[in-house]
Amino acid sequence: IKTTVLTLNEIENLARNVFQANGCDHSNTEALVRAVVSAERDCSMSHGLFRVPGYITSLRSGKVNGHARPVVTAATPTIISVDGDNGYAPLALEAGLPRLASSAKELGIAAMKITNTYHFAALWPETEALAEQGLVGLACVCHLPVVAPAGGNEALFGTNPLSFAWPRPGRTPMVFDMATSSMAQGEVQIAARDGHEVPIGTGLSLDGEATTDPKKVLEGVLLPFG
Amino acid sequence: IKTTVLTLNEIENLARNVFQANGCDHSNTEALVRAVVSAERDCSMSHGLFRVPGYITSLRSGKVNGHARPVVTAATPTIISVDGDNGYAPLALEAGLPRLASSAKELGIAAMKITNTYHFAALWPETEALAEQGLVGLACVCHLPVVAPAGGNEALFGTNPLSFAWPRPGRTPMVFDMATSSMAQGEVQIAARDGHEVPIGTGLSLDGEATTDPKKVLEGVLLPFG
Repeated sequence: IKTTVLTLNEIENLARNVFQANGCDHSNTEALVRAVVSAERDCSMSHGLFRVPGYITSLRSGKVNGHARPVVTAATPTIISVDGDNGYAPLALEAGLPRLASSAKELGIAAMKITNTYHFAALWPETEALAEQGLVGLACVCHLPVVAPAGGNEALFGTNPLSFAWPRPGRTPMVFDMATSSMAQGEVQIAARDGHEVPIGTGLSLDGEATTDPKKVLEGVLLPFG
Repeated sequence: IKTTVLTLNEIENLARNVFQANGCDHSNTEALVRAVVSAERDCSMSHGLFRVPGYITSLRSGKVNGHARPVVTAATPTIISVDGDNGYAPLALEAGLPRLASSAKELGIAAMKITNTYHFAALWPETEALAEQGLVGLACVCHLPVVAPAGGNEALFGTNPLSFAWPRPGRTPMVFDMATSSMAQGEVQIAARDGHEVPIGTGLSLDGEATTDPKKVLEGVLLPFG
């Protein structure tokens, strides 16, 4: 494997050029660039540049709207809704966060739901952004079935990740992000790309057998955490 | 084992007499009676009469206040706090629920914390009461460490149960209540009392060995769910 080292600036420019060249307008591009660069900055290889080909495939196929204009509404003072206009989640998140944060600060607790978006990134930007404003954040997202229940060998659950974060005086926030599978699907994908084995217990092959081969796990099912 | 069948009315009278005779005043008695009777009505043997000796022991020792007067306050419109005055949780819950429900109905979402109480009952009365008012409820409670992390053999986590419920049009609410141990501690206690075995995986003995003996599990640690 040939490796090329890039600075964060180079990563930013690369991501910007690629999103612009594939049909994203300015605001959609910049939200995606922030998602990719912050993942690389935090050494989350599974959610930075690694995701860009997936973003681009769904832009080119027309599945995702690169000119999305998220719309923020509030049915009640504490329930914020963002319709993502079939764009990617980071822009919808950025559109709704100020309203969510101001409701929580004023009234004590608030919830925001984001619909009609595509989620390729990690979940912690959602909660980190809240903790940086002095709030406690809790976020979850569903995913297509890829995880077998304990004792099973057929996909029933998504990896259904969960993230939470809280502020700490004079320090960076405490931020937690986990999949409810034994290993995050992105980490299994990275192992498959790089030819690494995964531990027994990560998942089962298509024929329901335990395996250390990440490619076989991705064809089969992940196993649940715990 | 000699078994005596009691009607719900007899259970109610028995519980009322026992709590009154051991130092509970009227309002504390009635809240506990409702907790015990509803558990027996719903066939949750681990949270009905089975818990009464524990309630009584802590009343007699003076650990719990049988004349508790819970105090409800709200730091913000959506954050309700109940100080349980060192009584049992059911009375504190009943004191705070109307305010929690009205805040949630008016503003969209609300949270309530209950402190200075002792929790012997199941967790679902909290969420069932909300669902019966047309609200979605989510409740959790911590517990002393009795559960080993996956792969470990020393207690680190509580059984930390989780309950949620939602209303259904024209039907009883959907109510869910689980421990995050492989088996609820109350169920292991019932098995120990009745001389039943528990499945391998429920817990470990004091020396860290897998066992089907519920008494050894209770001396040792429970294992986590999943």
